[in-house]
Amino acid sequence: MIRVHIDLIQSYMQVTIAMLLTLVMTASAFAQELTINQGNVVQKELDHPQFVDQLSSWNDGPSKRAIIAFVVQVSTLGGPNYIPPARRIAVFDNDGTLWAEQPFYFQLKFAMDRIKTLAPQYPEWKTTQPFKAALEGDLDTLLSGGKHALLELIMATHAGSTVGEFSKIVKDWLGTAKHPTTGRPYTEMVYQPMLDLLAYLRANEFKTFITSGGGIEFMRVFAEEIYGIPPEQVIGSSIKIEYEYRNGKPVLVRLPELNFINDKAGKPVAINQHIGRRPIAAFGNSDGDLQMLQWTCAGDGKRFCLYVRHTDALREWAYDRDSHIGRLDKGLDQAQTDGWTVVDMQHDWNIIFPSEGN
Amino acid sequence: MIRVHIDLIQSYMQVTIAMLLTLVMTASAFAQELTINQGNVVQKELDHPQFVDQLSSWNDGPSKRAIIAFVVQVSTLGGPNYIPPARRIAVFDNDGTLWAEQPFYFQLKFAMDRIKTLAPQYPEWKTTQPFKAALEGDLDTLLSGGKHALLELIMATHAGSTVGEFSKIVKDWLGTAKHPTTGRPYTEMVYQPMLDLLAYLRANEFKTFITSGGGIEFMRVFAEEIYGIPPEQVIGSSIKIEYEYRNGKPVLVRLPELNFINDKAGKPVAINQHIGRRPIAAFGNSDGDLQMLQWTCAGDGKRFCLYVRHTDALREWAYDRDSHIGRLDKGLDQAQTDGWTVVDMQHDWNIIFPSEGN
Repeated sequence: MIRVHIDLIQSYMQVTIAMLLTLVMTASAFAQELTINQGNVVQKELDHPQFVDQLSSWNDGPSKRAIIAFVVQVSTLGGPNYIPPARRIAVFDNDGTLWAEQPFYFQLKFAMDRIKTLAPQYPEWKTTQPFKAALEGDLDTLLSGGKHALLELIMATHAGSTVGEFSKIVKDWLGTAKHPTTGRPYTEMVYQPMLDLLAYLRANEFKTFITSGGGIEFMRVFAEEIYGIPPEQVIGSSIKIEYEYRNGKPVLVRLPELNFINDKAGKPVAINQHIGRRPIAAFGNSDGDLQMLQWTCAGDGKRFCLYVRHTDALREWAYDRDSHIGRLDKGLDQAQTDGWTVVDMQHDWNIIFPSEGN
Repeated sequence: MIRVHIDLIQSYMQVTIAMLLTLVMTASAFAQELTINQGNVVQKELDHPQFVDQLSSWNDGPSKRAIIAFVVQVSTLGGPNYIPPARRIAVFDNDGTLWAEQPFYFQLKFAMDRIKTLAPQYPEWKTTQPFKAALEGDLDTLLSGGKHALLELIMATHAGSTVGEFSKIVKDWLGTAKHPTTGRPYTEMVYQPMLDLLAYLRANEFKTFITSGGGIEFMRVFAEEIYGIPPEQVIGSSIKIEYEYRNGKPVLVRLPELNFINDKAGKPVAINQHIGRRPIAAFGNSDGDLQMLQWTCAGDGKRFCLYVRHTDALREWAYDRDSHIGRLDKGLDQAQTDGWTVVDMQHDWNIIFPSEGN
């Protein structure tokens, strides 16, 4: 009896092991097939006689193929990964993702110029930090306080005006200010491949949003014209605003008080507040975008997270783990762990700024 | 000499008076022509062989004609009042404007039901206001604190859950809860003429937003399905939300702390924060919407402001200047002064709730 039982148990075990092996092999084959399928999807798309390369500023490679694979999969009606247009929400950081952020945030330059303009009314600024540093162009001191201190400075110098007046101040500044190293207007310091990507996503019925640490009212002045992103799809840091009557007309007045800093863990919170649903794609370049990417890619169904990595010291700037501005350290680790797409600007982009295409 | 001079002066005066008279007559004729033209615009629209009455739930009358005149004028390409689609932003209050708000705000009923569900965990509620009143269904006490106190109660009972969990709680409640006097689901207590108006505006390339004192996350659960307004176009009151990790997954957790009350002077502020441009049309029903209408109609170019006035005690409820809920007093005065459209529900609407159409 005992002998028979042992035989039976052995048989059972063999069957079980065989079944497990089959399962593992099936799963592995399935995973391989998925990879092949994803490759096929892209190859089929690229080979299609009517294929127009809307990402021509992107060199062929894993980053470009990952983008196309994602877009084709979520927009193929009847496909297993189809997502209806209403849910095709894509969020983009701005500084270092859509436009450059070196040698320092463009809005910081705007704030410094603003402080210079306002200085005669505030003689105490000559001896009070951080205004003193701003007036003297002492960037080391300005940057030493970290991003939050910078945002506080930026926001504080943006108060007092009505929202209409402030827009005009920004518009006038953008019309004359020049980037300190390239001498180009700031609005030309945008990344052509990202402009192409925005257009490609919108052509596939994505709704594109900016969600940046930059000032919401600052970005809205140019976002529609240079990115095709309307004001209602721009999310950023803000100061408090008050409704009041001036000369018998209602105005919205900007107060010298922070309302919200749209950075790090603030980004998913603001995405929820403004958009009310989880994005299916997120694009950033620094640790400040990490929580936005985590939140996006933790959702169910097909998701896409991408980091732009600044690797081109010649055509742009090369920086990541040790940079004061746009540090990409923890984010790079998680991108590698979670298989997010990491753009290598030097190799993936055949053009960086629009002016290079002329 | 003196005599000649007096003659000359008399001649000058006559000429001046004649010129002034001509000016006054021209201006008056111009104003008349404008009024006639607006009438013509609507009559031409109504007489057009391809005219489909998208506002068939509205009786012919000044309200309906004012809406059509406005829409035709801002959307006539090449016309003097043309406004490009990107700027055709229309904002709608919800409670009392898109759906009913009597005998008390629907979200208050949700909060009261929620307090009942949670009560076993909080025995102290039996003796603490306003929870005691909520548990006992004592509306007089609940409403005596005003709208802000109500919103605080509502918001406090909505905390603790993640945003996903909260949506599910609201969805489940909406699926079973019934209106206390009509016995219908709350989602059927919407105004058919306003649904038609939303659709008519969208057919004319308007972007429609809700901006309500109600909870932003509460309204987002049903706004897309019943109004065709996606979550990113819903603005409301909110509590603070925090990003954190639970069981290795990122979640957004609702905190028992008010973030923003979207009422009165808060409405233009939130419109600016979420939309970033001034609406060209605003629709409300109470003094809580007054600043939103003021802000909208103080803008340059063609604007449209409308108050829904609850005048139908038989088919709905009749209330305005003295009501605790949805008081329309100062707003009614300004509507009359500024020539805003005031809808008389009893006469302007041939159907109120969708179920009457069956």
